[in-house]
Amino acid sequence: MSKIYIVGVGLTKIGRFFDKGLRELFAEAASKALEEIGNENVQALIVGNMMSSSLSEQDNLGALLADHAGLGKIPAFKVEAACGSGGAAVYTGYSLIASGLFDVVMVGGVEKQTEYPTRIVSKALAQAADAEYELFYGISFTGLNALIMRLYMDTYNVSRDEMSVWPVLMHKNASKNPYAQLRFEVTKDQVAKSIVIADPIRLLDSSPIGDGAAALILASEKVARKLSDTPIEVAGIGMATDHIYVAYRENLLSLEATVLSAKGAYRMAKIEPKDIDVAEVHDAFTVLGFINMEDLGFSERGKTPKLMDEGRFWPGDKPTVNPSGGLKARGHPVGATGVYQVAEVAMQLRGDFPGIKVEGDVGLAQSIGGLGTTVTTLVLKR
Amino acid sequence: MSKIYIVGVGLTKIGRFFDKGLRELFAEAASKALEEIGNENVQALIVGNMMSSSLSEQDNLGALLADHAGLGKIPAFKVEAACGSGGAAVYTGYSLIASGLFDVVMVGGVEKQTEYPTRIVSKALAQAADAEYELFYGISFTGLNALIMRLYMDTYNVSRDEMSVWPVLMHKNASKNPYAQLRFEVTKDQVAKSIVIADPIRLLDSSPIGDGAAALILASEKVARKLSDTPIEVAGIGMATDHIYVAYRENLLSLEATVLSAKGAYRMAKIEPKDIDVAEVHDAFTVLGFINMEDLGFSERGKTPKLMDEGRFWPGDKPTVNPSGGLKARGHPVGATGVYQVAEVAMQLRGDFPGIKVEGDVGLAQSIGGLGTTVTTLVLKR
Repeated sequence: MSKIYIVGVGLTKIGRFFDKGLRELFAEAASKALEEIGNENVQALIVGNMMSSSLSEQDNLGALLADHAGLGKIPAFKVEAACGSGGAAVYTGYSLIASGLFDVVMVGGVEKQTEYPTRIVSKALAQAADAEYELFYGISFTGLNALIMRLYMDTYNVSRDEMSVWPVLMHKNASKNPYAQLRFEVTKDQVAKSIVIADPIRLLDSSPIGDGAAALILASEKVARKLSDTPIEVAGIGMATDHIYVAYRENLLSLEATVLSAKGAYRMAKIEPKDIDVAEVHDAFTVLGFINMEDLGFSERGKTPKLMDEGRFWPGDKPTVNPSGGLKARGHPVGATGVYQVAEVAMQLRGDFPGIKVEGDVGLAQSIGGLGTTVTTLVLKR
Repeated sequence: MSKIYIVGVGLTKIGRFFDKGLRELFAEAASKALEEIGNENVQALIVGNMMSSSLSEQDNLGALLADHAGLGKIPAFKVEAACGSGGAAVYTGYSLIASGLFDVVMVGGVEKQTEYPTRIVSKALAQAADAEYELFYGISFTGLNALIMRLYMDTYNVSRDEMSVWPVLMHKNASKNPYAQLRFEVTKDQVAKSIVIADPIRLLDSSPIGDGAAALILASEKVARKLSDTPIEVAGIGMATDHIYVAYRENLLSLEATVLSAKGAYRMAKIEPKDIDVAEVHDAFTVLGFINMEDLGFSERGKTPKLMDEGRFWPGDKPTVNPSGGLKARGHPVGATGVYQVAEVAMQLRGDFPGIKVEGDVGLAQSIGGLGTTVTTLVLKR
């Protein structure tokens, strides 16, 4: 298979933008990415998005955004895998170039949530779970994560205080990231005293609701160096799924789709977890951050909170985790998040991420849809 | 680029199934397709669907369906391009094999509409148009098509009686198709006297609301002949988009995305329109059937109704159009329709379509999302 490169990235700040809809947000990210490649022609557009159908009454999003971003009458469509839509869109874009159909493809992600009341957004987010076997009985998506947080803390004997290191580090990292939604630091005490969302998950264990858009430009080996002086190679890419109905899972403290997708990406890139310098992992809730670090092979089961409390995975360590601030504090514009992560890791390897900088040649990005139901893992190399 | 083949197909009957949800419908189609290849392992699943988000409160559809169809923890996600979702899913599946990532990929399509009141389904269907520039002002999707039907009849001086040949032929063809939703014949008089939906569109000019699922198995050249004695080659594939906002179009009597996507498919397959023996084209409304025949190069502008009235495009002619009965009478389970069309053409070329049979070696399938906003065209060869 020929090599595929990231040759352009563009991000919007994540936040509440009452004056910007899906098309305005996406055009902002797309135009930044296009500027990086000198407005060269893009041949196809793949968009990761979860909620335009359920919240914004808008389908046919690929064509709409291609038109509004001025990309012309190119092939364009939307890819949906709940919160993992961004990763699935990158996967699709990768295959469109690897197939030989195109040399230059834009992969975008966009989400618009803040115009709607929280209860409507929560209901739309819950569509990542099984509508007939789970939601029908009244559990929320946060409720499912709360069951897992309690099990993690009980099984590994981890205290509330120890769990709180995740949001503390994420907010600290995000405070330096100009694209982040929550640019303020928090203390363990503030996390523990924030309001309960679904016990034991508290407000500061949860990623915020926000709007945002991200765009990547992928290119074939043939044209990558013409379009960028600092192309970043997609050295490995893996995807896997799991039972959407959580009660079918054999183990709630490991997300098998993460393990499988990471194995695929590591094999393809011919690397091991210890080779990775910087990682952007999925942490919609505190407990998922820890479980993902363990499933990706960065840490032993149940040990991550204590290790992180001792300074492991902070800036300066290898790997540095979520220098962006993660979903927790950079924000989680659902279908766009997976594209943000890949863009951020690419910028780290190029050396121009405008927040906390990580030295290194190898990075990882992990995009999850649902409770580990659909996972895409990428390994990028400078 | 290496050759890609269709090695298995499975369809459900289209209709109102109050006892079957998305997962049951899809599993039925998937298991039929799997039987055709001897239940060999499928390595990835791509699902075309428009309305699971807006009607069924279900996202993460790829993983859900892979799980329920017993495909295991394989890469899986949904592709959305409104009513053209099925075509876009086939396009994605094609690229996943052409890329070398996989040898065997299932492409599915599924839609579940009949559980909901018609006004809710109509609203969900209208999301194929521009929510902010069109729907906000109150026009329905049928309303947009009605404007075009009136313009077509006025510009080319076509009478109501002449337009009615399309539904007459479609219902006649569908009456022989065991998978079709509307298996009864209609007369021109019945079409002209059916109730007005959006003047001049009448009930019998419109495709019905229905549930259905379709599955295709695509395979690489390496494995195709091991899995099927009658592999059908995807000889050409093209996709294009257009302004979603119809007022931006230069010409309302031609869908430029059809012209562009067909040009791409013809070039890749090294054929011309006259080489095609059988075509399944998009005819959500009568006028779209005629315009598509013209944009695909089968007929001159404005001449199709009269030609068809004289027997052109009926069974026995080349090309025979919509031997399935088309969207009009086979039915239009939105996101699944594009997959049905490809499966039907593949069965025609294999010689085992269980309705009207067409002799020949070359077929075409055309999948449209919105009012010609996203179009995928495929050329298949025996």
